[in-house]
Amino acid sequence: MRISPCSAQAVELGPGDELVVIDPEGQQVSDVVAFGNPDHGEYLSSGRSLDYASRFWLTTGDVLYSNRSRPMFTIIEDTCGRHDFTLTPCSKDTFRIIYGENEGRPGCEGNLAAALAPYGIGVDRIPIAFNAFMHVSIDATTGEFGVLPPLSKAGDFVRLRAEMPLVVAMSACSAGQSNNFSFKPIDFQVVRRNPPSCSNG
Amino acid sequence: MRISPCSAQAVELGPGDELVVIDPEGQQVSDVVAFGNPDHGEYLSSGRSLDYASRFWLTTGDVLYSNRSRPMFTIIEDTCGRHDFTLTPCSKDTFRIIYGENEGRPGCEGNLAAALAPYGIGVDRIPIAFNAFMHVSIDATTGEFGVLPPLSKAGDFVRLRAEMPLVVAMSACSAGQSNNFSFKPIDFQVVRRNPPSCSNG
Repeated sequence: MRISPCSAQAVELGPGDELVVIDPEGQQVSDVVAFGNPDHGEYLSSGRSLDYASRFWLTTGDVLYSNRSRPMFTIIEDTCGRHDFTLTPCSKDTFRIIYGENEGRPGCEGNLAAALAPYGIGVDRIPIAFNAFMHVSIDATTGEFGVLPPLSKAGDFVRLRAEMPLVVAMSACSAGQSNNFSFKPIDFQVVRRNPPSCSNG
Repeated sequence: MRISPCSAQAVELGPGDELVVIDPEGQQVSDVVAFGNPDHGEYLSSGRSLDYASRFWLTTGDVLYSNRSRPMFTIIEDTCGRHDFTLTPCSKDTFRIIYGENEGRPGCEGNLAAALAPYGIGVDRIPIAFNAFMHVSIDATTGEFGVLPPLSKAGDFVRLRAEMPLVVAMSACSAGQSNNFSFKPIDFQVVRRNPPSCSNG
């Protein structure tokens, strides 16, 4: 499945299903957010996940936790190795405040909210995303950080195993700084643990 | 006002009011969360605030933004200079996962939720806090971080000016690692921009 540049899509996952988020052309970012299904009060929590990993950059073997400290995903394969989990999705306000851009483009926040609208999940509920392939570097002394071009090459991917029933939304990022000012698509695959069978014989 | 060790309190602020969070004995942490008042759908956002500052550690002059990218607080004075804004408040699950502690202590999360219960704000809504005086150090190469004893000395404080009507909750932290295993109180003062007057003459 392809997510067009500057857009987002949602998908439902069951426990054990695998979501493969792919950067087909290289140097593109996908903001991934997740909610419990059907209880959307549970959501992907950066603060819990980082605290339990004691590491800012997560990769293979790390667990992405919910606000209720339950595993939502395990990263089971990661050909890139560098992602961000500290920043909120770009939005029309991000563009205004950081870039001085007043066109009102929805950004990943607006695109994720549109993808999640059928589930009744509003824009206020969009948390800090697992920003796949986003490359944030930090100065450990001052705490200043830079958003650099992603390290991902064409075809790099991160494979996430769902650990509970989830509604997930993913974007193809709209922020120039995050993708080296080259807006590109994102691909994804869902590998079902238990594919639907024909129950009618 | 004093917040007893391992507890939390809530307070309402109007625009221009100042909240002074004080570490009376030194090396104690206060997790501060905030919500719009009366619209609690708006909340203090780590991801927005860090993104707009391009810095992980915030101090005097920095603005703490809401999820709607509106200023909630400005830090107008800071005698300590080092705080965290990346981790969620400690909770019974934090103690279990990180410390192997199964007593079920509520932690800052539970204490903040209890303080916010009169406002109808439930535990699922507790976001990443502005963790005043919390000292997180990071290895810029690996992203690994450590929670170190706070740099705050007795009497250090951070002065926050409210930029909109807010419900704020603050804790005296319950996590040993955050306060050098010495559970202490936190003090706070509210300086009203427009003190209530006697309208009855």
